[in-house]
Amino acid sequence: MIRYRHVALIGLGLIASSIAHAIRRTGEPVRITGYARTAGTRAEAARLGIAEIRDSAAEAVAGADLVILCVPVGAMGDVAEAVAPHLAPGATLSDVGSVKGAVIAAVGPHVPEGVHFIPGHPLAGTEHSGPGAGFASLFDNRWCLLTPPPDVDPAALADLSAFWTALGARVDVMEPDHHDTVLAVTSHVPHLIAYTMVGVAEHLRRVTEQEVINYSAAGFRDFTRIAASDPTMWRDVFLANKEATLDVLGRFTEELFALQRAIRLGDGPHLHDYFTRTRAIRRGIIEAGQDTAAPDFGRAAAKD
Amino acid sequence: MIRYRHVALIGLGLIASSIAHAIRRTGEPVRITGYARTAGTRAEAARLGIAEIRDSAAEAVAGADLVILCVPVGAMGDVAEAVAPHLAPGATLSDVGSVKGAVIAAVGPHVPEGVHFIPGHPLAGTEHSGPGAGFASLFDNRWCLLTPPPDVDPAALADLSAFWTALGARVDVMEPDHHDTVLAVTSHVPHLIAYTMVGVAEHLRRVTEQEVINYSAAGFRDFTRIAASDPTMWRDVFLANKEATLDVLGRFTEELFALQRAIRLGDGPHLHDYFTRTRAIRRGIIEAGQDTAAPDFGRAAAKD
Repeated sequence: MIRYRHVALIGLGLIASSIAHAIRRTGEPVRITGYARTAGTRAEAARLGIAEIRDSAAEAVAGADLVILCVPVGAMGDVAEAVAPHLAPGATLSDVGSVKGAVIAAVGPHVPEGVHFIPGHPLAGTEHSGPGAGFASLFDNRWCLLTPPPDVDPAALADLSAFWTALGARVDVMEPDHHDTVLAVTSHVPHLIAYTMVGVAEHLRRVTEQEVINYSAAGFRDFTRIAASDPTMWRDVFLANKEATLDVLGRFTEELFALQRAIRLGDGPHLHDYFTRTRAIRRGIIEAGQDTAAPDFGRAAAKD
Repeated sequence: MIRYRHVALIGLGLIASSIAHAIRRTGEPVRITGYARTAGTRAEAARLGIAEIRDSAAEAVAGADLVILCVPVGAMGDVAEAVAPHLAPGATLSDVGSVKGAVIAAVGPHVPEGVHFIPGHPLAGTEHSGPGAGFASLFDNRWCLLTPPPDVDPAALADLSAFWTALGARVDVMEPDHHDTVLAVTSHVPHLIAYTMVGVAEHLRRVTEQEVINYSAAGFRDFTRIAASDPTMWRDVFLANKEATLDVLGRFTEELFALQRAIRLGDGPHLHDYFTRTRAIRRGIIEAGQDTAAPDFGRAAAKD
């Protein structure tokens, strides 16, 4: 059940538009206002009926009991500064940024007395972006991680948890630093690696682009899907989660060099042992309901 | 149209069983015999009706006009040696190995006079293995690359091309060395990187396994799917395609270090430019029909 009666969305991309669609799917009488910096985005969101579009962030948040900042991590501080004086007393301010430490540092100082600041991160997305990319089921069965301050008001936290549950998500609460480490492993570094691999392919002169494209077997094709994600969002993620990203990258390079050495030396048992162990984590993910065992590999389209 | 009347499959895993299903789907009167080294695999294949199962590779190939070696790359030489004396004159010998130079070196010397040796590689697979993992549509719209010797008999090559086309695949012909470089970029190194990333996650003590599993956002989840592929097959691929794999890995590490440096120095424009360029290759793959633009990310299961 949604306890808010007016939700304001600042930024109107994939996540914000999906929030709007998911709120509407609940059938509850929630007013949705919104603002995006770019006039074209505002016009598209208005045309799609995502929200009541306002001409400024200040106007969009006026009277809202929940304000969600849905902009790239690097823009959170400026947006928070712009909306802070216009937040209603007792309102909750949240966000959907992929990094929590940097967002708390950028937004926290602007939050006025009497407003509950509860940062959040729905672990959901696609490689598409913009108001037209959103859909109501994006958060179904996905986790939304909340990283409230130690002195958070329990009622405000319960309301925000109930909100994300109503949108289909599963909610968990954790420390911001721990969140940033977990996400560096499960999302940030994998994205960086996928970007890198696609960049390597682009540069290889012996392999023409058409061949890379035509013969993209499962491995590379999955990488390109990841590497097609929004460049601005990801630039900000890496700059904002620098410490954890560099730490995990260091461990990754160590492991990769060990495997590279095994290949160079022809050490088959080392490779076989390593590849056998990684299968277990995959089984865990399927059992946890975060993916399907179906051997689709994007095959649905091939059958069309 | 399939011009063979008797196809022998040596090895009865995912690819061989999919070939059998796909042959049957054509409705043509093709006899299929098969052999696998492990008794359990032979029993399972017999129970599933994949093929007429024989007790030796020699018996399985007797009288066949097409013999396809469907074993890991490292086993090709031994299997070729075992079947060579029993191949019918005029028969075609092929394989499905992911590396072509090493397979040609291992199999070539055993091929008797009068047998057409035409190596092949269908670019299709899933992370599952064994006779029960096969399905008839595995090759639909996928490429099958053939790497025949320069003096190949044109009629034999045409027959094998027609065979794969009848199974749903698109056929292309290329030099073995070129094949191995293209596949190092589009498949082998991406798999190695996925294995590495999943291994890193397993070792990170600050992140419990359950958290890695629960919070596997799109990036890591796609990696674990790739990293769940058959360990024996992949060990052999890296050992057999050592030179191209190490070459592409070197380029990958260079690129990764450049991005790592940009993160450390806070160079946002470098990151944004890089991430923008990788989007173009993704668009090319969708346009080439090798994947779908649908934002599924394994979401089908989540809706169940």
